[in-house]
Amino acid sequence: MTDFARALHARYAMPAASPDPAAEWAAATPHPVVDSLLRHCSVRAFLPDPVPEATLLSLVAAAQSASTSSNLQTWSVVAVRDPDRKARLAEVTGGQAHVRECPLLLMWIADLSRLDRVAEVTGVPADADRYLEMFLVSVVDAALAAQNAVVAGEAMGLGAVYIGAMRNRPEQVARELALPPRAFAVFGLCLGRADPARPASVKPRLLPSAVLHHEQYQVDTARERAGFARYDSVMREFQASQRMPAADWTAQSSSRVRGPESLSGRDRLVAALAALGFPLD
Amino acid sequence: MTDFARALHARYAMPAASPDPAAEWAAATPHPVVDSLLRHCSVRAFLPDPVPEATLLSLVAAAQSASTSSNLQTWSVVAVRDPDRKARLAEVTGGQAHVRECPLLLMWIADLSRLDRVAEVTGVPADADRYLEMFLVSVVDAALAAQNAVVAGEAMGLGAVYIGAMRNRPEQVARELALPPRAFAVFGLCLGRADPARPASVKPRLLPSAVLHHEQYQVDTARERAGFARYDSVMREFQASQRMPAADWTAQSSSRVRGPESLSGRDRLVAALAALGFPLD
Repeated sequence: MTDFARALHARYAMPAASPDPAAEWAAATPHPVVDSLLRHCSVRAFLPDPVPEATLLSLVAAAQSASTSSNLQTWSVVAVRDPDRKARLAEVTGGQAHVRECPLLLMWIADLSRLDRVAEVTGVPADADRYLEMFLVSVVDAALAAQNAVVAGEAMGLGAVYIGAMRNRPEQVARELALPPRAFAVFGLCLGRADPARPASVKPRLLPSAVLHHEQYQVDTARERAGFARYDSVMREFQASQRMPAADWTAQSSSRVRGPESLSGRDRLVAALAALGFPLD
Repeated sequence: MTDFARALHARYAMPAASPDPAAEWAAATPHPVVDSLLRHCSVRAFLPDPVPEATLLSLVAAAQSASTSSNLQTWSVVAVRDPDRKARLAEVTGGQAHVRECPLLLMWIADLSRLDRVAEVTGVPADADRYLEMFLVSVVDAALAAQNAVVAGEAMGLGAVYIGAMRNRPEQVARELALPPRAFAVFGLCLGRADPARPASVKPRLLPSAVLHHEQYQVDTARERAGFARYDSVMREFQASQRMPAADWTAQSSSRVRGPESLSGRDRLVAALAALGFPLD
């Protein structure tokens, strides 16, 4: 079995005994970069070793090398290492220990404020910054950049985990980071050396057929429901293997989007963004 | 000079004659993956060679291996190869030739509809899907996934370019792709073998100091404006080298966000999303 096939088996929790389920992939040009992308797992247990400044700069250079809409470069990143600041930000996330413990916390900023400052130089108004479209551009720019930083970090031997719970209290996070108006922390990213004593595992995903459509979006309900049932059983097994309470993916996902009360305060994101200078017209 | 230093020089348009401007990076663990991320350039000139199905599946597996908020996997992708469909989608983007010419167009979908179908199975309502937060989750999920596909594609010898102009007419794109309610095409991605007769170049970016902050967001106005002026001259030179009309980055960026009329129809994104089932509460 190739590294690629092994990585596929782990990513989709394919039974090793089945007739090679990776057969349809067999013609793919194997590449170690693809193998390593497939082996990604979110790391939540870090050694305290600091991340050197030179490594941080490499992460930023990788991030800046991602595509950015119209080359507007509408994102920024705040590198947080101060233990007190990390502790306060961990509190925003509901006390996630890895936010406190990681040696480097990168806060990814959807940042239209730089364009405001460009507008001051050119004397041209930046009125489009009020629109949802420009907010979306900056969020996508920040996400593409951050993912390149994750890929670069993993290549350099770091582990990482995204922290969406930074959106629980956007105004408090903005104050903590001294963000100017029209800058919003979309998510955090914990980085550091993974603690080998508390290893992370590849989390299985829905099969490709669940997310990939050809030409048009088509759902075969019976087939999709069979896929959900298979994945429920895969995730129960995975969670048992991690000594986590076993639960169905469908039940967990459903309860995560049951209603505004499931959003940990993020049901007021529209108001928070308005306060931060994003009216989202 | 190492590959890494060479890639940095190109990414930041550092003059080769200067005292090694990559000195601060010298301690970074060099890694060929980081070098290749730094060498990314958007490819808009493709050979017609088809992208094999096995390669597509590898791209999707890489995409699925990216992080996804709470493992909700709120994205889908529609692979478009039909020339007529590509031509119609190219028309949405204002006639971008590469959308028509690329052998594979991936349309990345912020997709909450799958959670609606999960809710039908579990019998639990999915009321949080109305909120901006869940829309943001699905957009970020889609962006992280797409960027992994770009990294994987480039490793496998493909070129790629993101197409944000798919948001010019979201309802038309949704009809073209037969998207269900609560599914939105965030952007397209053209993929294929780059045409060696029309090579792309690494586009220089703002220096890292423009986007990276430590502990808190701090702007030194004089220093930032000097950086803008330097980058204006870098981009004028770059555009001249590409035989494109030379223009200042500050002027181009400013005119891109001057007002709603600069948004190619995307100033009505809020209404379009409401029509697609995203009230963005």
